[in-house]
Amino acid sequence: MNQIFEVKGMTCGHCEQAVTRAIRVLDPQAEVHIDRARNRVEVDTTQARGVVAEAIREEGYQVEA
Amino acid sequence: MNQIFEVKGMTCGHCEQAVTRAIRVLDPQAEVHIDRARNRVEVDTTQARGVVAEAIREEGYQVEA
Repeated sequence: MNQIFEVKGMTCGHCEQAVTRAIRVLDPQAEVHIDRARNRVEVDTTQARGVVAEAIREEGYQVEA
Repeated sequence: MNQIFEVKGMTCGHCEQAVTRAIRVLDPQAEVHIDRARNRVEVDTTQARGVVAEAIREEGYQVEA
């Protein structure tokens, strides 16, 4: 299921990696695409949206929507 | 030997970790202190200054001095 999040606080490529890794811990098959300039994280996963959002938050980023 | 570098491009804690790790690969005993707000990296190491600077550059950061 395709989910789109607005995520604030990703300042560099390491942050993108941290977000990607946090999502892949939940779902190793997840596809993650990040457009940092737009604060946009697109995830294709079987996990529930709230669970994915929480994983991103726990990594230290702000999930707006 | 205490060395001080001016390093640009460190945007977040992950960058600090990346710089620290790159230096510790050269010298596992190195002490590394980073003041990101001031672009300041202080290293206590037995390695030569040029070698440390190159390791930081290879990690993708700009070493000014």
